[in-house]
Amino acid sequence: MAVLTRLAVNGDRLNANIDRLAKVGRRDNGDICRLAFTPEDLQARYLVQQWMMEAGMTVRTDAAGNLIGRYPGKIDSLPVLATGSHIDTVPSGGPYDGVLGVLAGIEAVRTLRDAQQQLTHPIEVIVFTDEESSMIGCQAIAGTVLFDQPEKYQPKIGGSIQAHLETIGGSWENLATAKRTRQDIAAFVELHVEQGAVLEQSGKAIGVVQGVVGMCRRSITITGQPNHAGTTPMNMRQDALVAAAQVVLAVREIALSLPSQPVATVGYLKVAPNAVNIVPGTVELEVDMRDLSNQCLDEMVDRLDQELKTIAFSTHTHIDQAIGLCVEPTPAAHLIQQTIAEVCQELGLSHCSMPSRAGHDAMEMGRFTDMGMIFVPSQNGLSHSGQEYTSPEQCTQGADALLHTLMRLDTLY
Amino acid sequence: MAVLTRLAVNGDRLNANIDRLAKVGRRDNGDICRLAFTPEDLQARYLVQQWMMEAGMTVRTDAAGNLIGRYPGKIDSLPVLATGSHIDTVPSGGPYDGVLGVLAGIEAVRTLRDAQQQLTHPIEVIVFTDEESSMIGCQAIAGTVLFDQPEKYQPKIGGSIQAHLETIGGSWENLATAKRTRQDIAAFVELHVEQGAVLEQSGKAIGVVQGVVGMCRRSITITGQPNHAGTTPMNMRQDALVAAAQVVLAVREIALSLPSQPVATVGYLKVAPNAVNIVPGTVELEVDMRDLSNQCLDEMVDRLDQELKTIAFSTHTHIDQAIGLCVEPTPAAHLIQQTIAEVCQELGLSHCSMPSRAGHDAMEMGRFTDMGMIFVPSQNGLSHSGQEYTSPEQCTQGADALLHTLMRLDTLY
Repeated sequence: MAVLTRLAVNGDRLNANIDRLAKVGRRDNGDICRLAFTPEDLQARYLVQQWMMEAGMTVRTDAAGNLIGRYPGKIDSLPVLATGSHIDTVPSGGPYDGVLGVLAGIEAVRTLRDAQQQLTHPIEVIVFTDEESSMIGCQAIAGTVLFDQPEKYQPKIGGSIQAHLETIGGSWENLATAKRTRQDIAAFVELHVEQGAVLEQSGKAIGVVQGVVGMCRRSITITGQPNHAGTTPMNMRQDALVAAAQVVLAVREIALSLPSQPVATVGYLKVAPNAVNIVPGTVELEVDMRDLSNQCLDEMVDRLDQELKTIAFSTHTHIDQAIGLCVEPTPAAHLIQQTIAEVCQELGLSHCSMPSRAGHDAMEMGRFTDMGMIFVPSQNGLSHSGQEYTSPEQCTQGADALLHTLMRLDTLY
Repeated sequence: MAVLTRLAVNGDRLNANIDRLAKVGRRDNGDICRLAFTPEDLQARYLVQQWMMEAGMTVRTDAAGNLIGRYPGKIDSLPVLATGSHIDTVPSGGPYDGVLGVLAGIEAVRTLRDAQQQLTHPIEVIVFTDEESSMIGCQAIAGTVLFDQPEKYQPKIGGSIQAHLETIGGSWENLATAKRTRQDIAAFVELHVEQGAVLEQSGKAIGVVQGVVGMCRRSITITGQPNHAGTTPMNMRQDALVAAAQVVLAVREIALSLPSQPVATVGYLKVAPNAVNIVPGTVELEVDMRDLSNQCLDEMVDRLDQELKTIAFSTHTHIDQAIGLCVEPTPAAHLIQQTIAEVCQELGLSHCSMPSRAGHDAMEMGRFTDMGMIFVPSQNGLSHSGQEYTSPEQCTQGADALLHTLMRLDTLY
């Protein structure tokens, strides 16, 4: 172990590769547009595949188009230790989101190979297909694809998911063959930029992710009575916007009052008739609530139900709600969280525990095997923007933490 | 006087005329669309002109297209006692808004004429041009038209105000000739439906209007920071919608806390980017505040300023405001209010004092001469809708109150 812990990734090589990949799909304004299944996505896959091979990995593509590099273990029949992330972007993306996790995984393997070392377990670096939209790559591996609803996976660029999978070497018909189990993936660790400002503001180098939060959404419709804003006395109003304002503040209060520090947001709100001289008759709004624990999510939902009743009564409005998108939280394995924290300690990297409040490939991986995530800071918390920035040093620190986490997990699984 | 007070309008005739006029511009769904300057407006003017002549009036059109019927006085050189309202509607209007005041004025004159009576003063019944939009008719008479800004009077149906005035027998070039003074209009009394539910809920037949409220509008822009609704902890947010919700509730509280019972409304509110998973970055909203006294309006504006500062500070947002449409309140003459109340007493009509919180032609007339208004109930407070309803009996009561108010004012001016 003493020799192994002195290994360090080649930061210059890692960051040069990040810069190289950032040229694929870069626009004049600095944003990167590398949507899944596009020629840019293929060009990026081609580069990554070469880097995998240079690192000593054999490469294959599964039926979901996931690009999987494998570095053999000393006991190659053991379940693999897997890492990876994605290289597709949102329409106006940045250089680090997803890319860092993939290239740091390859760099970790290359570092082992350059030192002529192998772990006991095989290592896999996975490039998941279409993380930014359908998440079909990680869902195929987790076995959570809805095979009878291909329309749910239609890419935003048009065309059918079936045709797009063919383009990248996959196959909708054989998608079930991409499914993996705990018996062949012992653990999955994903390095990712935080996409928030918690690490930057707390001055920590590494976030030890406690899990990917679950989400509950509600679509709420408030029906009052549209009326003349001049002739309707205050005490005769059924003002849907006054009720909506109370809902917005209640949603915030619910999140602030709970000890696990969940988040809750009203991001969408629409008023009708929406004229300066008419008391609002109808307001539609959407509530998004996220937390690591189902217990807290349930508590938020219950409290919201109660608040809506109180507000409807006091404002003389009618409030309906419909259940929107709901995603179960995925906790990170305690063993992996503890391992990451110990590795940071040894490497002299400051760290703190925190939830991931955005979705990631790791969220699906955690549904069938032990999962962990390592976060590095995002400048100003910015993400999904060409302005996204994590310094070369921070990227290197993340890759080192990933390398040593895999090495230590090799002794624990 | 004893003989005169026993006069009563012919309610059947009045309500038959209201029903007849309601056919002009009526749509299949029951709404009435009789926009100023349209063929429907002209058709209605043609009918009203005939009814004026049948009531013994001479009829003329001034440069603003106002249709003015005159019934001579015993001393015809005295200043006139004027009444009237408008016959144009909003795009989805009802049968009573404006029409009642015009037809009740004609009916009052016809009642005098049928009884072979004249007042000492001449009476004028005025049909004001385009009350529902530009208010150019009453503004021309009050002398408040902005002659150098014809674009402010462009009708919503398109075309120039100059051309439209020609259509109805007016003239933009000669508009200044429409101006009247206190020396030739001694007093103006307008009968109108309430367009609110105060009379209905208090069970009163007649509202004695204290004045037309003034209005202050503010356009407010709240700038926060758009952010990922998942990855941004509650305490790092600059949520423009949370700030806006506080503004909506503060506006309501300001109105509720003031003794004169003003109204204040946020009727318009727009969120950006307005997506369920993004903390709102910007909110635009419009505040509309109305009261009878400038002192109260000033107090509301000051309190709003203070609240905006407090809210901006506590929510870490930036709040700008721009001054919108502001209209001075117009008090009704005390002598006319008292006269209406005494007439109601004599006629056995229950009554109460109340502000007019909607704009009316009387608002402009009150800028240069003594003004009063008589309200009758609106069922469910509904207006600007084909569902607008005031019963035939209530219309007749209003017309009787108008007739006797004019007769009593004849002895006071």
